[in-house]
Amino acid sequence: MINVGVVGVTGYTGQELIRILLKHPQVRISGLFSRSSFGKPINNIFPEFNGRLELVCQEPKVSNICSKSELVFLALPHTTSLKLVPQLIKGGKRVIDLSADYRIKDSKVYTKFYAVKHADPKGLRKSVYGLPELYRNDIKEAELVANPGCYPTAAILALAPLVALNIADLSSVIIDAKSGVSGAGKKISENFLFSEANEDFKPYKVGMHQHTPEINQELSKLSGSKMKVVFVPHLLPLNRGILETIYVKKSKNPKAGSIIELYKRFYKKEPFVRIRNNGDMPRLKDVVNTNFCDIGIQEDGDTVIIVSAIDNLLKGASGQAVQNMNIMYKFPEAQGLL
Amino acid sequence: MINVGVVGVTGYTGQELIRILLKHPQVRISGLFSRSSFGKPINNIFPEFNGRLELVCQEPKVSNICSKSELVFLALPHTTSLKLVPQLIKGGKRVIDLSADYRIKDSKVYTKFYAVKHADPKGLRKSVYGLPELYRNDIKEAELVANPGCYPTAAILALAPLVALNIADLSSVIIDAKSGVSGAGKKISENFLFSEANEDFKPYKVGMHQHTPEINQELSKLSGSKMKVVFVPHLLPLNRGILETIYVKKSKNPKAGSIIELYKRFYKKEPFVRIRNNGDMPRLKDVVNTNFCDIGIQEDGDTVIIVSAIDNLLKGASGQAVQNMNIMYKFPEAQGLL
Amino acid sequence: MINVGVVGVTGYTGQELIRILLKHPQVRISGLFSRSSFGKPINNIFPEFNGRLELVCQEPKVSNICSKSELVFLALPHTTSLKLVPQLIKGGKRVIDLSADYRIKDSKVYTKFYAVKHADPKGLRKSVYGLPELYRNDIKEAELVANPGCYPTAAILALAPLVALNIADLSSVIIDAKSGVSGAGKKISENFLFSEANEDFKPYKVGMHQHTPEINQELSKLSGSKMKVVFVPHLLPLNRGILETIYVKKSKNPKAGSIIELYKRFYKKEPFVRIRNNGDMPRLKDVVNTNFCDIGIQEDGDTVIIVSAIDNLLKGASGQAVQNMNIMYKFPEAQGLL
Amino acid sequence: MINVGVVGVTGYTGQELIRILLKHPQVRISGLFSRSSFGKPINNIFPEFNGRLELVCQEPKVSNICSKSELVFLALPHTTSLKLVPQLIKGGKRVIDLSADYRIKDSKVYTKFYAVKHADPKGLRKSVYGLPELYRNDIKEAELVANPGCYPTAAILALAPLVALNIADLSSVIIDAKSGVSGAGKKISENFLFSEANEDFKPYKVGMHQHTPEINQELSKLSGSKMKVVFVPHLLPLNRGILETIYVKKSKNPKAGSIIELYKRFYKKEPFVRIRNNGDMPRLKDVVNTNFCDIGIQEDGDTVIIVSAIDNLLKGASGQAVQNMNIMYKFPEAQGLL
Repeated sequence: MINVGVVGVTGYTGQELIRILLKHPQVRISGLFSRSSFGKPINNIFPEFNGRLELVCQEPKVSNICSKSELVFLALPHTTSLKLVPQLIKGGKRVIDLSADYRIKDSKVYTKFYAVKHADPKGLRKSVYGLPELYRNDIKEAELVANPGCYPTAAILALAPLVALNIADLSSVIIDAKSGVSGAGKKISENFLFSEANEDFKPYKVGMHQHTPEINQELSKLSGSKMKVVFVPHLLPLNRGILETIYVKKSKNPKAGSIIELYKRFYKKEPFVRIRNNGDMPRLKDVVNTNFCDIGIQEDGDTVIIVSAIDNLLKGASGQAVQNMNIMYKFPEAQGLL
Repeated sequence: MINVGVVGVTGYTGQELIRILLKHPQVRISGLFSRSSFGKPINNIFPEFNGRLELVCQEPKVSNICSKSELVFLALPHTTSLKLVPQLIKGGKRVIDLSADYRIKDSKVYTKFYAVKHADPKGLRKSVYGLPELYRNDIKEAELVANPGCYPTAAILALAPLVALNIADLSSVIIDAKSGVSGAGKKISENFLFSEANEDFKPYKVGMHQHTPEINQELSKLSGSKMKVVFVPHLLPLNRGILETIYVKKSKNPKAGSIIELYKRFYKKEPFVRIRNNGDMPRLKDVVNTNFCDIGIQEDGDTVIIVSAIDNLLKGASGQAVQNMNIMYKFPEAQGLL
Repeated sequence: MINVGVVGVTGYTGQELIRILLKHPQVRISGLFSRSSFGKPINNIFPEFNGRLELVCQEPKVSNICSKSELVFLALPHTTSLKLVPQLIKGGKRVIDLSADYRIKDSKVYTKFYAVKHADPKGLRKSVYGLPELYRNDIKEAELVANPGCYPTAAILALAPLVALNIADLSSVIIDAKSGVSGAGKKISENFLFSEANEDFKPYKVGMHQHTPEINQELSKLSGSKMKVVFVPHLLPLNRGILETIYVKKSKNPKAGSIIELYKRFYKKEPFVRIRNNGDMPRLKDVVNTNFCDIGIQEDGDTVIIVSAIDNLLKGASGQAVQNMNIMYKFPEAQGLL
Repeated sequence: MINVGVVGVTGYTGQELIRILLKHPQVRISGLFSRSSFGKPINNIFPEFNGRLELVCQEPKVSNICSKSELVFLALPHTTSLKLVPQLIKGGKRVIDLSADYRIKDSKVYTKFYAVKHADPKGLRKSVYGLPELYRNDIKEAELVANPGCYPTAAILALAPLVALNIADLSSVIIDAKSGVSGAGKKISENFLFSEANEDFKPYKVGMHQHTPEINQELSKLSGSKMKVVFVPHLLPLNRGILETIYVKKSKNPKAGSIIELYKRFYKKEPFVRIRNNGDMPRLKDVVNTNFCDIGIQEDGDTVIIVSAIDNLLKGASGQAVQNMNIMYKFPEAQGLL
């Protein structure tokens, strides 16, 4: 049983973290912290917690946070974690940061996409990218886990076997991504009003989304050569879920055997990656409200079509964060997530 | 052919007005005015108008407005019209005001619900409540039309025959109202975010909605005695449409004959009110994108159940405003609306 | 640990039962039965169960069912349970029936609303209406539990204190009910097509819905006098959730003290009923994906407005069924439901 | 003024045709025909037409149809038009067929995708593919217009300039297409139930959709060489609209000047194709309820990203059919469509 604090509880990932942790048998939520809502009981903010959790939110001061918890989840807006992480680490805490602040290893790229200088290069060097399927061993011992972005989680899991096994033309990757509106967080802007997003569908940030460098970084590491994908995100009129349709040209000398079998072998021991059989493609409904990533594969001429689906708030954020916690504390990896 | 100006074009009712007026054969849109967006071409704000209307929005100065138009539509937030109307009237213009500012004849009630003092009592006295089914003759000659609220339009049309013909217990009226999200306008608040309103349904402002006094005022006038309805609005997860389910106890001495027949006779000549046959109830789909109000009636014991449906942006706002314009200028009443 | 069978697994309530039972620590799903899909693995029917449950569906023969399970959930269409229940009871099994077949104690009323003769009057006499808040003691020992309908669950919980404490005019009850589309089951009819229900809202079966006699039966029992409510259901364009807005006239001699306090006292020990504080009303979001019933109360003149919200597939069906199972087997009542 | 008949009025495209034709100043709807609903007034089937059109549907016998109309729209399921068309042509009528029956010039390909032998090879040879932007002159004189499919309309308009001007690698075309549910017609199947499609998103018929050969046929004709695109359709949880995101590699020797300018020039005189400026991408909201096709273009490295959006029931079906009628009868091309 460990004591866990959550900083930034009023957004969708904070709320989802509370939902999961409340059901987790080896965790006690010892503190909730919010800059905008300290002093308020959490069940006033989210009446769904009435009768289940009546903790009062506290000011997110380092001393408050450190006195309560041995593990801290940060569910803060990007660039805000940078200020807290070094002090929490210094206070001897382990940290799982759901923001983008410690994901991009090249701080110049970080600055380009997030418009601030990276103030904690030391932390950045030590942080572990929290995708268990690639970094499970590092996560076990990590002080600071940079929990992956939602789009990158679906993209990297979909492409990792292909890239690692060298069965594709690495210069040909096209990712057509579609996300539900909660992927944008609880941002109060005209774009995300119901009357704007409902019955609409559109691409946005074409060729310039901040998740592109995160995908490129991890695929480049896997392939051993600098990769640059074409990434076009779209906004879906639904609450939860990301589905990415990915197009890759097969490499000249393809591996023998079916690609589906290669994928099944690659993810054989993974508790949260499921490969579909031939002719069967994922849909959002199969993964929403779960921590699974479902992947379907089909070939069309010399193009491989890969479809990858996750719940952006679970495998794409808070669920993956708890999976990381389970790994860090040697709990069963799926505890609280099934 | 008349020259028409629209003030406040960036909201949903302004946009809808432009859509209708563009198709109206006797109208020229002579000026668009917006405090927040002057200087921008309207097709930059709403790309749907690309290639159809490329007018640049102007600052809503009285002199600008007056120089362009003989009729002015005001699609402004409540309390804002108060400042413009007296000057436009003084400038010899006719005005159709889509805000609530000139609907409530008792300025104390106005102040209670809209939180400002009414600055134009003279205008208030002369304004005509723009519900053609009740005030067609006054509208013909009106200088200033106060275009009705969306909820009141559906409620008053549903109850007018019952109240006027005295077939109901006037103290027993319960209005359970449901509105799509565009009814709230383009208000940027957490409540109206897609991720909040989608897959949700809830009552709001129970017993205190600002449309209640408007309904009470008009029903009291019709019945000749002070009426007070119970009115509970709810927020529907869809873009357009209001449906109200209304419960009334029958009066002790009911009129002979079916209530449906009474309603059909009452609205016999109305181009935009349709009474359903026995056993048939309206649904939003039948009225959305039209200027119709559909009404269905069923008795259950001594309770009369009336269901009334409109498109909140058309019969509940901009469509009704154009219907009023047609009446004022002796155009065919349904011109541009069918 | 008990062995549990589920008959009728391809519908929404069957699927939801599997979801809950998979997480329940004291249950083993020992058999899944389906007339339309026997021979198929459940994860072929619902890919969400890939890697979690790979049981093959069996033919729902009594011998098959009895050999596997000590408790049987029936998630069958109305009128189908009638054939299975007597044989399962004879086979010594306990049964929780999610259909309407054993809810209506008056078999003439049953026949009127479900269009078949009731073939098991003996079972009907012994069945217990599975609303734990009213019948917990009977459920403990029951062989056959008739799990309540979704609309009745929300309505009866909302009205029980008022009726039992005699604070209302029992002849004045109006229930304006709104349900998400899954309430209709997986019925393949034009009405429930996406393009029909989406962006639409409508009343249906006004004054003749089959849940009306179920509500009347239970309220009459509570009040000790024959009650007849006005009940108007509507179809909401969303997946899950029921919200009912209920209007009742206060009785002449109201009890002292606030109605909210009376409700809180009435439900003080209930794990799944939550009463809102003054000025605070439920919304679907607070109860969807939970087994809670949230109730808000507000007075407007001499009318009491009660708003009641549940997830129709949980407290309105499968969640309540598992709550009943927990009571029958003396498991903690909220086990697997929080 | 011409007399027009519509055969197959109960589906979404038939309903949409009636909506448009009712507003068209040069058309009289002289007959409505339906195999499933003859004898019923159209306003019973669609209450939205109450008070606007009260025509009784007739049996779709050739003699009935021919006696009433000089132009016939067929809004029938695929393979059904084949039986009617030859007789209507023989009867001297002009026909606009909204089905796929006369679109695919190679009858073997037709048989492969629609599973029937083509029974009217003569009609097939004479039919004109009704995409005005490519075949306006042929349409003017056509007896039989094969109205294009919805996906092909958006795809061909998006790719025509690129293919015709030879600025792309024709072997590299990837079309990631997303359609609202009305694109499937009023098909009553589990897939299209509200509870299935709502809050879901999924690819379907990957690599085998029947619109692929239609796209390939037209692009091959334009380019002068056999083309084969990768086409992946997805189902969007909304009523109306298609948005396609298309990826093409630039050819080795690109034309000088911006691609956007080339597109603007290509479509300069087209009333219903709008090219977005640099940095600006279409969204469904801009085209839904209009007959426009909006196209945005952006380059990312050597990939050209083209986004194309239409309303599947208007430019993708009934709107385009009326545009074709306008061309055939020398009415202003946008009459009734703006």
